[in-house]
Amino acid sequence: MSLAELSPADLSALAEELTTSYAELKDAGLKLDLTRGKPSAEQLDLSNELLSLPGADRTTDGSGTDIRNYGGLEGLPEIRQIFADLLGIPVAQLIAADNSSLSVMHDSLAFALLHGRAGGTPWATRPHKILCPTPGYDRHFQLAEDLGFELISVDLSADGPDLETIKRLVAEDEAIKAIWVVPTYANPNGAVYSEAVTRELVSMPTAADDFTVLWDNAYAVHHLTDDELAPVDVLGLAAEAGNPDRVFVYASTSKITFAGAGVSFFGGSPATVAWYLKHLSKRTIGPDKTNHLRHALYLKDADGVRALMRRHRAIIAPKFDAVERILGDRLGSYGVATWTQPHGGYFVTLDVVENTATEVVRLAKEAGIALTPAGSSHPYGKDPQDRTIRIAPTFPPLDQVTAAIDGVATCVLLAAVTKLLRG
Amino acid sequence: MSLAELSPADLSALAEELTTSYAELKDAGLKLDLTRGKPSAEQLDLSNELLSLPGADRTTDGSGTDIRNYGGLEGLPEIRQIFADLLGIPVAQLIAADNSSLSVMHDSLAFALLHGRAGGTPWATRPHKILCPTPGYDRHFQLAEDLGFELISVDLSADGPDLETIKRLVAEDEAIKAIWVVPTYANPNGAVYSEAVTRELVSMPTAADDFTVLWDNAYAVHHLTDDELAPVDVLGLAAEAGNPDRVFVYASTSKITFAGAGVSFFGGSPATVAWYLKHLSKRTIGPDKTNHLRHALYLKDADGVRALMRRHRAIIAPKFDAVERILGDRLGSYGVATWTQPHGGYFVTLDVVENTATEVVRLAKEAGIALTPAGSSHPYGKDPQDRTIRIAPTFPPLDQVTAAIDGVATCVLLAAVTKLLRG
Repeated sequence: MSLAELSPADLSALAEELTTSYAELKDAGLKLDLTRGKPSAEQLDLSNELLSLPGADRTTDGSGTDIRNYGGLEGLPEIRQIFADLLGIPVAQLIAADNSSLSVMHDSLAFALLHGRAGGTPWATRPHKILCPTPGYDRHFQLAEDLGFELISVDLSADGPDLETIKRLVAEDEAIKAIWVVPTYANPNGAVYSEAVTRELVSMPTAADDFTVLWDNAYAVHHLTDDELAPVDVLGLAAEAGNPDRVFVYASTSKITFAGAGVSFFGGSPATVAWYLKHLSKRTIGPDKTNHLRHALYLKDADGVRALMRRHRAIIAPKFDAVERILGDRLGSYGVATWTQPHGGYFVTLDVVENTATEVVRLAKEAGIALTPAGSSHPYGKDPQDRTIRIAPTFPPLDQVTAAIDGVATCVLLAAVTKLLRG
Repeated sequence: MSLAELSPADLSALAEELTTSYAELKDAGLKLDLTRGKPSAEQLDLSNELLSLPGADRTTDGSGTDIRNYGGLEGLPEIRQIFADLLGIPVAQLIAADNSSLSVMHDSLAFALLHGRAGGTPWATRPHKILCPTPGYDRHFQLAEDLGFELISVDLSADGPDLETIKRLVAEDEAIKAIWVVPTYANPNGAVYSEAVTRELVSMPTAADDFTVLWDNAYAVHHLTDDELAPVDVLGLAAEAGNPDRVFVYASTSKITFAGAGVSFFGGSPATVAWYLKHLSKRTIGPDKTNHLRHALYLKDADGVRALMRRHRAIIAPKFDAVERILGDRLGSYGVATWTQPHGGYFVTLDVVENTATEVVRLAKEAGIALTPAGSSHPYGKDPQDRTIRIAPTFPPLDQVTAAIDGVATCVLLAAVTKLLRG
């Protein structure tokens, strides 16, 4: 029975019961962490072969280039080929970089800010704004804020973004230079951008002629079901729409091999890649080619990556299942929360009673369960409805995920009942 | 006998002789490259142990942190300690990054341009200039030019920079925000900045209150003689002078282990490091810690690095000796060139007859000997006297260095004689 339908007496009884449960939770002295989308040690172990690769007698790539020396700004051909196949991008339009795709995002934006895109005005010289489908990835928002962008929130549901609002805003405001997109299994709500939505994003008229779609395909191959979605050909669609240079593509192996020691990628139209390389060539002589070869030898080809991702799924899918099961069991009947059931990626978004998310996070923290701060999925860390909580279940072992989600459910209910009683 | 003292008949005879020698040189069909300061394969081989480190059972650093996962923005404590010892910088003031110190230079300058230094005005919002001791490192100059700095040349002799000019310029022009310094065995003339010179740079009055010394200690431990210079305590001197935040320190293992797959470093005052980390934290979750551990296990400690550098010296010192010997034998008596005799680093600077450097490079190229373009050691690639040529002898095997320098000597003489004959 929904909370709102309970009689005053039943509500009081429930409040008492929850207060007791919460006291027991605190007494249990938990120390659990659901904050960050990190692979677990068990997942990292899958790729330990990397720790002794490429091996002491392996000093060149397939073309005979010494991987130990300077050079090769675009990255090793072998590793670019594997991800070109996975992402459906011509290898000439995909370059491989160092361990962090966030860095590639930073650098591509810094280049646009300092130099302008391909002959245009440097973005930094004028007010610049960015569209932030919300809920979204906190590091995207913080990076853009640090770079002086004004963050503009637009709604993102599990079905996709609010296209009408996006189209209206970009058509009328020349200062809007970009939009963040996590097209596949979005962080944190698991949304998937369909081909139809993508087509709109790359073809819609924009006031800024250098408007850019920041296409962070972080979870392109991170499926949680048998339905292994193929990537949308965003660069092909953009070219077809007559806006070939509109898209920056990002990807990485952070949640494929090692989160801190993988390979990242940047893709775009031939002109975009040339522009990026031009400025990159002033920044570095080249990426770490030994790590590229290490990854190419280990992953072998696109199918090697797909096989590895199925092993990841075997480890993490039970954790997502546990989240869904416990939230259903504990909260389902009360009508106090909704949550996403992602088909891939690293997160579950839990929407609680309005104006209680901060309280839920506080209650959980006092009971030893760390959650991402309420609001972190929103621009400037401010959720106007104070209701969205991001849950990251991959890092802790399954029994800890179970205990933590059960505890969170108690906090969600307690906060909801308390709010109701206070009227 | 100096060329200028030769009789017209002797000069004609010499010209004929050189023309024949040059024709023979061209016929030899050489393919030699003295362009870039790259370690040779033999040097890289010294560190092949890195190719199978840290090893499949090594997943944590000394403090138990999983090196495979996210985090650790400052870099692995072990590798920071080794280079803190070598550079004479407190470990808390030295952070370890990825494979390219040029990238760290780019990023620190980009942060200053986009955000300003510690509360100051973003440099990008106003005209910004940088002092370039010349001859200098072409990539320094190109990076600054790409970032919109106006490059101002100041003389750098083998004894150090023209301090009087530097002090006058920085005192009167607020737009001068920085100076490039390669303090030890400067690229390309081998200059060493003494403690006295350093003290002046960190204590001189500057119109800009955020004036920054970009202290690129790329060759701190790259000695070619038994006199293994200790690094000047630039941060200590800056603090003593009341300008603790004036210096950015850069270093890397590019010419210690692998040129393309080493570890780079950034150092500064506590406030400078905090400022850098604040912006870096938006750019990345952390550097490649597996590569840090790989290096820490291989290098072991500061003495491990020193021992490795002596093995490098054993390989490259004979190449520098050959350059010096051949230039002396072939050019010494004619008074047509001077060259540096560096005590460390990666380069020899060859100054030829004015207005002939471009011709020497052209002649050498036609004979199959690649030299860095004349002017590359000067801001904007323009050497007003057209006389400076940078020679990088480390990469080719010794016999190729010998053949290439002998060929270059022929080109230098031929260009000089031709110029003299034309009046």
